[in-house]
Amino acid sequence: MELKYKKLISKELNELENNLSISVSSEIELATEVSSYLVNSGGKRIRPAICILVAKAFDYSGSDLIRLASSIELLHTATLIHDDVVDESLMRRGKESIQNKWDNAHGVLVGDFVYSKAFQLMASFDNPNIIRALANATNRISEGEVLQLSLKNKDKLTENQYFEIIDRKTAELFKVSSVTAGILASCSKDQLDSLSQFSTSLGIAFQIQDDILDYYGDEKFTGKKVGKDYEEGKFTLPIITALKNADPKIQKKLLSLFEKNKKNNFEEVLNLLETANTYEKMQEVFIHYSKDCMNKLENVPQNPYREALEDIVSNLGLRLS
Amino acid sequence: MELKYKKLISKELNELENNLSISVSSEIELATEVSSYLVNSGGKRIRPAICILVAKAFDYSGSDLIRLASSIELLHTATLIHDDVVDESLMRRGKESIQNKWDNAHGVLVGDFVYSKAFQLMASFDNPNIIRALANATNRISEGEVLQLSLKNKDKLTENQYFEIIDRKTAELFKVSSVTAGILASCSKDQLDSLSQFSTSLGIAFQIQDDILDYYGDEKFTGKKVGKDYEEGKFTLPIITALKNADPKIQKKLLSLFEKNKKNNFEEVLNLLETANTYEKMQEVFIHYSKDCMNKLENVPQNPYREALEDIVSNLGLRLS
Repeated sequence: MELKYKKLISKELNELENNLSISVSSEIELATEVSSYLVNSGGKRIRPAICILVAKAFDYSGSDLIRLASSIELLHTATLIHDDVVDESLMRRGKESIQNKWDNAHGVLVGDFVYSKAFQLMASFDNPNIIRALANATNRISEGEVLQLSLKNKDKLTENQYFEIIDRKTAELFKVSSVTAGILASCSKDQLDSLSQFSTSLGIAFQIQDDILDYYGDEKFTGKKVGKDYEEGKFTLPIITALKNADPKIQKKLLSLFEKNKKNNFEEVLNLLETANTYEKMQEVFIHYSKDCMNKLENVPQNPYREALEDIVSNLGLRLS
Repeated sequence: MELKYKKLISKELNELENNLSISVSSEIELATEVSSYLVNSGGKRIRPAICILVAKAFDYSGSDLIRLASSIELLHTATLIHDDVVDESLMRRGKESIQNKWDNAHGVLVGDFVYSKAFQLMASFDNPNIIRALANATNRISEGEVLQLSLKNKDKLTENQYFEIIDRKTAELFKVSSVTAGILASCSKDQLDSLSQFSTSLGIAFQIQDDILDYYGDEKFTGKKVGKDYEEGKFTLPIITALKNADPKIQKKLLSLFEKNKKNNFEEVLNLLETANTYEKMQEVFIHYSKDCMNKLENVPQNPYREALEDIVSNLGLRLS
């Protein structure tokens, strides 16, 4: 089932792809080669899509939109490249990661190159509020990365810490995608506030869904191996929810399994999660955020672009039902 | 012998130090801790000093200068942090490098944090030309890094390639330091062109001096171990100059020593360089650029700030005589 937005803004999404390719082409061949390898590898483009849908929902028809959407996607791409260096990830979007195909140095420096391309695009806007919003988002995202790093070797992550990290690492870029689109479309302060809340909740719902699917998804459907977060020792929502709700004996067992981090006891972990109704609890959290998305969207004019945004929210939920 | 600028703009340099400390303080403790470790470790602040001197030579007295100088120093710091990850350098400014004291992940992510702080400062300017000049410089610098990486495993580096790399990696930031200061001080197009040429030549002269001192400097004076570039297998001006001027037999010998990269044959390399008058040839190149600096400074109003800029240029030469 294809999401509505893909057809509705297919022209803009094509322009985005062209613009991304042009943006990362450089006099320095290696910079073009390595950055294009990831930039042209067909991500979901969900952040630029939100940016485009919001601007068009508010009737923006100027020429700045694709450039804005591109700067956001490049910022996202740069963080992925550096994430893969830091996590020593082997794969990204079904291909070898840059640090795996080339090496750490290529990951660090080409990541910086992609950042610099995002900044050049950002700097091209006439409205300083757009530039500042993007610069502030860049900072909050990078602080989120450092926060996650600082909590990496802790025994466990609290629910608050988890939400602080995903608010910065995921929701922040969703937020700035939609708020800068609103600024471009000359939205009022109230409208910008609604957009900010809508897209923050959407970013959180998106990350929650991602974390749930990592434990309960169907590999054929998600394209990702089930249990990867657990294998990598990442504290994500399933473990955090179970630790919050399970009885002390189960908590202890879970933590001990998590510490040992054996690759062959994922089934045992799933059984323990079940005893604490973890899936249902997580669904409640997800529903809270997706309802908030829908509520906040009521302040957006009723038109096909808003419907496509609602469709994105509904679709996240469908994949969990 | 202390450089004139240190006394002349000591007030501004103190403000700079304060502003740098404030800029890297963050809600995320680890981000503050690791970035302050390098930011507060007392670099020469030559780039911000040039920025301040140029603005004041053109009689700028507004409140934007320290913020501009800080953004430039932070941009420089971020590149140092990532350079140390890429080069696996153990030391920086006489202390353990971040990637050595912590690890790669800290280097990559705290480097990104410092970049993001530089961008936030950049985004705070009202004049879009300042923001764009800084974003373009960031891009050219990062392209210089990737260019250097792409040439890393080549047999040798040509003179042109060497100058292309130092123009991007070193001169670009000198250039933008002085040009953005000129924009702040409402300089004319002609004045900005002169500033651009002055500071590009200064950046190149600075790097040439650095490369010469790496072979011929006095460790007591420079604080750096002699022969480090050679040990690390870096093609810099001494080798490039010798390969250009020596007879074929010596060239072959040099290349073979360089390939083997033995740590105990530095004396032999120095002897080979001497047969090709390498030191004198490099001095000629240095003098060409430092003369160009002085010529271009003639378009700057005659005042103590210009004298301090001239003093920086003369001092680079003194260290080579």
